Amino acid sequence: MSGNTFGHLFRVTTFGESHGPGLGVIIDGVPAGLRLDPEQIQHDLDRRRPGQSKVSTMRKEADEVEILSGVMDGVTTGTALAMLIRNTDQRSRDYGNLATCFRPGHADYGYFKKYGIRDYRGGGRSSGRETAMRVAAGSVAKQLLAHYGVTIQAYTLRLGGVDAAKVDLAAVESNIVRSADPDAAEAMIAAIRAAQAEMDSVGGIIECRADGVPAGLGEPVFDKLDALIAHAVLSIGGIKGIEFGSGFAAADLRGSVNNDPITPDGFTSNHAGGIIGGISNGNTILFRAAMKPTSSIAKEQKTIDEAGSAVTISVHGRHDPCLVPRAVPVVEAMTALVLIDALLQNRCARL
Amino acid sequence: MSGNTFGHLFRVTTFGESHGPGLGVIIDGVPAGLRLDPEQIQHDLDRRRPGQSKVSTMRKEADEVEILSGVMDGVTTGTALAMLIRNTDQRSRDYGNLATCFRPGHADYGYFKKYGIRDYRGGGRSSGRETAMRVAAGSVAKQLLAHYGVTIQAYTLRLGGVDAAKVDLAAVESNIVRSADPDAAEAMIAAIRAAQAEMDSVGGIIECRADGVPAGLGEPVFDKLDALIAHAVLSIGGIKGIEFGSGFAAADLRGSVNNDPITPDGFTSNHAGGIIGGISNGNTILFRAAMKPTSSIAKEQKTIDEAGSAVTISVHGRHDPCLVPRAVPVVEAMTALVLIDALLQNRCARL
Amino acid sequence: MSGNTFGHLFRVTTFGESHGPGLGVIIDGVPAGLRLDPEQIQHDLDRRRPGQSKVSTMRKEADEVEILSGVMDGVTTGTALAMLIRNTDQRSRDYGNLATCFRPGHADYGYFKKYGIRDYRGGGRSSGRETAMRVAAGSVAKQLLAHYGVTIQAYTLRLGGVDAAKVDLAAVESNIVRSADPDAAEAMIAAIRAAQAEMDSVGGIIECRADGVPAGLGEPVFDKLDALIAHAVLSIGGIKGIEFGSGFAAADLRGSVNNDPITPDGFTSNHAGGIIGGISNGNTILFRAAMKPTSSIAKEQKTIDEAGSAVTISVHGRHDPCLVPRAVPVVEAMTALVLIDALLQNRCARL
Amino acid sequence: MSGNTFGHLFRVTTFGESHGPGLGVIIDGVPAGLRLDPEQIQHDLDRRRPGQSKVSTMRKEADEVEILSGVMDGVTTGTALAMLIRNTDQRSRDYGNLATCFRPGHADYGYFKKYGIRDYRGGGRSSGRETAMRVAAGSVAKQLLAHYGVTIQAYTLRLGGVDAAKVDLAAVESNIVRSADPDAAEAMIAAIRAAQAEMDSVGGIIECRADGVPAGLGEPVFDKLDALIAHAVLSIGGIKGIEFGSGFAAADLRGSVNNDPITPDGFTSNHAGGIIGGISNGNTILFRAAMKPTSSIAKEQKTIDEAGSAVTISVHGRHDPCLVPRAVPVVEAMTALVLIDALLQNRCARL
Repeated sequence: MSGNTFGHLFRVTTFGESHGPGLGVIIDGVPAGLRLDPEQIQHDLDRRRPGQSKVSTMRKEADEVEILSGVMDGVTTGTALAMLIRNTDQRSRDYGNLATCFRPGHADYGYFKKYGIRDYRGGGRSSGRETAMRVAAGSVAKQLLAHYGVTIQAYTLRLGGVDAAKVDLAAVESNIVRSADPDAAEAMIAAIRAAQAEMDSVGGIIECRADGVPAGLGEPVFDKLDALIAHAVLSIGGIKGIEFGSGFAAADLRGSVNNDPITPDGFTSNHAGGIIGGISNGNTILFRAAMKPTSSIAKEQKTIDEAGSAVTISVHGRHDPCLVPRAVPVVEAMTALVLIDALLQNRCARL
Repeated sequence: MSGNTFGHLFRVTTFGESHGPGLGVIIDGVPAGLRLDPEQIQHDLDRRRPGQSKVSTMRKEADEVEILSGVMDGVTTGTALAMLIRNTDQRSRDYGNLATCFRPGHADYGYFKKYGIRDYRGGGRSSGRETAMRVAAGSVAKQLLAHYGVTIQAYTLRLGGVDAAKVDLAAVESNIVRSADPDAAEAMIAAIRAAQAEMDSVGGIIECRADGVPAGLGEPVFDKLDALIAHAVLSIGGIKGIEFGSGFAAADLRGSVNNDPITPDGFTSNHAGGIIGGISNGNTILFRAAMKPTSSIAKEQKTIDEAGSAVTISVHGRHDPCLVPRAVPVVEAMTALVLIDALLQNRCARL
Repeated sequence: MSGNTFGHLFRVTTFGESHGPGLGVIIDGVPAGLRLDPEQIQHDLDRRRPGQSKVSTMRKEADEVEILSGVMDGVTTGTALAMLIRNTDQRSRDYGNLATCFRPGHADYGYFKKYGIRDYRGGGRSSGRETAMRVAAGSVAKQLLAHYGVTIQAYTLRLGGVDAAKVDLAAVESNIVRSADPDAAEAMIAAIRAAQAEMDSVGGIIECRADGVPAGLGEPVFDKLDALIAHAVLSIGGIKGIEFGSGFAAADLRGSVNNDPITPDGFTSNHAGGIIGGISNGNTILFRAAMKPTSSIAKEQKTIDEAGSAVTISVHGRHDPCLVPRAVPVVEAMTALVLIDALLQNRCARL
Repeated sequence: MSGNTFGHLFRVTTFGESHGPGLGVIIDGVPAGLRLDPEQIQHDLDRRRPGQSKVSTMRKEADEVEILSGVMDGVTTGTALAMLIRNTDQRSRDYGNLATCFRPGHADYGYFKKYGIRDYRGGGRSSGRETAMRVAAGSVAKQLLAHYGVTIQAYTLRLGGVDAAKVDLAAVESNIVRSADPDAAEAMIAAIRAAQAEMDSVGGIIECRADGVPAGLGEPVFDKLDALIAHAVLSIGGIKGIEFGSGFAAADLRGSVNNDPITPDGFTSNHAGGIIGGISNGNTILFRAAMKPTSSIAKEQKTIDEAGSAVTISVHGRHDPCLVPRAVPVVEAMTALVLIDALLQNRCARL
């Protein structure tokens, strides 16, 4: 209810703050019998972790994951699977006026209004650091999905105003911005550098595809598959929009163009993004999510303090000038959580 | 779990098919003590009902609502509140090859793959007709929200490629397409007419704003307020995308531009759309949703039948050439469901 | 959250008050493909309905059920299944001081403290009348369970201090108190008559067994199968206790006696009542529930009114002098809801 | 869904196996602003921990709790609160035929049938060891409840056939069996010793009371307060029955006796155990739970192995000859979880 849980049959609950002892997750509903590869989990965490490249934050965290339960002799037992990461580089420092001012673009103000208290140390629970456990849980989900032939891959489609001109899935992990177009990667990196030089930040668009999803996933009415994915992806800090298939462009199409014709060999187009009426149709699931520029910038900004007085603020510290490259595995993870839940739920659809 | 329920503390469960005896809703969690205005509920239903104008389906349904429980002497009692609408114009007819073919752009195929059975009579549960009960429940939510000073209004921002050049809230209900710009309404109506003449359909973009929302609503991590609204709005059939505040455009902005400065008098811009870090900040909540063109068109289309053979299909019947105008109150309703739930949840945020 | 919903994968939500327009239920999660027998539902409702015998209330309700959704051509479609019963004999009458006094043994006082308002007309939502929809939903559950070879039968084991000396399942429906021992039935009926003559009431004990339940149902930790059944059965108004297998007597046994030996042919005893560690073991599930005497009695009792002043009260009206016989099908229904949910959940236990 | 979560607004999710790295809990929904006393949590854990007295298991576990999140400067922040205990004495040993045989009275068989795999090392997830995290979470709940004037105390009412002749709350923690009657404690201890000498075990009855509970807690219909407590308490391994107030004895009472008269000064009796119609009435909440004798006994028993062949088994190891004294704080914890959840839920009952 208080929002630290996601999913129903594959139910993920996380905890942890940026500057607390650590972060963790409990997954309730991992089916018994899966040979779990911990290195795969660590690999996914490494794709998200800070300090991985010259365009990410300099905070150094190994993000080494420990599996605490739910696995015996390398195989899932069906009981709650827990994982833990210790924070190792949450520097104690003088927060200056960050401790009493609200950072523009940050959750500070809302948290203060909500709880009457807020954790100013790195944002506490509102820190993007919590997404580490999403990735850990998502990696378990991805391993389950792989067992059923489903694969998920996200990539940077646009960053700092630079578009990927093509989508080359094999190239995504070969450039530090995770661009689908390795040729565009350099321009994207330059855009980040330019913003950084001006004590500023940039955003971008992530595209994600899921292949091998069988037709029939998703529930009618409120838990449509796209609604669940939208919930999942919009729950990632900084994501401000999502669209499936033709998305916003579909608003301008005629029905005769937007409807995907069905043939004995499958659909001949994918305006729907693989989901119609909230149910997967067997086509590739495809969506895009827009990420805003990082809120924490060194440039001076206007804000107020807890007393309501006007102040100016410069958010120094170790912040990513662009969060898009590190958000790519988080988008994959959230998509995986939705798909495995829908796949399990589907086991109960028929007699 | 199977998707007919939405919300937690203000929990809505609906039932009903296009061609069954009727549609209904149970709301669990209506606080006791609200003087409920049934005419307001009927008014909202009238805004959604078929046959309300020359650009909507000709199906005639009074959509008269009956309150079955949860209210005594006009005041809510705190117990489950149920409402029922009888279907009165679900014409029995020869469905021809609709009974055995999958309509392009429709949920038919997915339902068949999921359940091994599907209701071909008007789409059954996948019919947009189910949204009537969302509107009824949303109307109760809106009455509660009004008690707390929160108002919600949606309107057509773009339709058939025609933009509203301005937003005049007072004018929305004065034109049959619910355009925020009464001057653009005529061109929008013409776009619908043109598509209809070609046995085709058009889509559009709905914008929605919520005013008076206190800062602090929404939950950290998975149940961010925008994630919940995205879930709610994407669960409406035909919605293919959503964006908050600057939305997809934010992906191209610098942080220094996109961050909304805070002053003692409030925010000086609203790039965030009233939600930061998933928590409302007291600013107007503002989002846009893209709706695809109606899938049911009389134009001939390619598809397959249940046996997998190629066929052509023309979907005749009483379909809306554009669903946007009737979806406006549905978007409001879903937004209301999220906000009242978040508002109740917030009562438990502090000691 | 507000308690009108039970279950997860087979999720039942009910509404309705004793003196409102009617009662209803939505079942979310009925698997597609079940040929549903409406007469079986009506038969179960008839076993619960008022006025069925000389020892039940004289209120006359046909409790005729209407299926509103979720079934096409007699077969479940997988979508929400709704049922409705209209109240037909909710007599308008002068409630006298019932409208302002709290009836001893009733929920009046608690409701008033909770909601600041209460429905004095027959108890409103707290009336036993709400159990009708449990029976309707339970009947759907029983039909599903029958498909999987599971049967449930409850019966009166003790009533008004009279014990059933034997358990003859075939005889249960042949006597009006649903005694498992037809020979004891007459003495039970006499006990009811004697209490009634003194403007008083009696209680009793219901035993319930489920046969054919496969080993492995129920979840570790919080959702143990017996915990779920206890939740389900204690949620029936008037039930004050439950015990499984040897139950309270097990507290006095040695482990060597209480442990059920396992042999290649099965268990040689059933002290556990078919559930160990919260998981079914394949043995017959067996439990007993204690029901208090009816609270509504014509005998004069001490109480207070809404102003807190001492008054005396005689609860006249059409009340059952003993609710046990009519509660028997309700206990079956609640047990069925738990078992079908556990059975569906089990589909997700393994890869 | 898979049962590792309990509660809604104060939602507890646990993990951990007897012989894994450790045990943990996430509490989602702790209101912000509570000054949390970690020593109180440790104190409650000490009351449950193994090796605490000569009548408990010799396994030595400090059960030292670490708070991982949700608390800043000693005060709850409103975000997920996590706690961890490391296992330190999970001896590696030769399990002999325990690894392939099903222990009578244990969950082994059910787990094997459910998951196709089971953790034979100390029972894995089915070990009573998981209750440590219930106690930790319950201690947080108790601290919250104390803030609202609610106190909970459980005690041994009967053990090995020996009754407590009186209830002296002050004496409970002064004897190692947590008897409410210190004079009976010696006989209870002797009963345990006698059973132990015969390689056997004994059970007992725990009574629990909650004082200061305001009238109005609990929800109508399915989530009655007693139903929730029954769910909570029956979810503790080894509990086989529960009764409220007069409980099973109420089945034999007349309504005129069982109804608790209400006077301007309160109720003059408490046959109801403080809950009527599922709603607290302001009276002391009082219930009793029956616990079976420990299943693990050294005495030889008949069982089968995984191949289905008959074998005999002696369960050696470090087992409690009676679990009742250590279950007392677990019963308190589970009661606390229900009450705090109901108390939070009640904040949403009215406008």
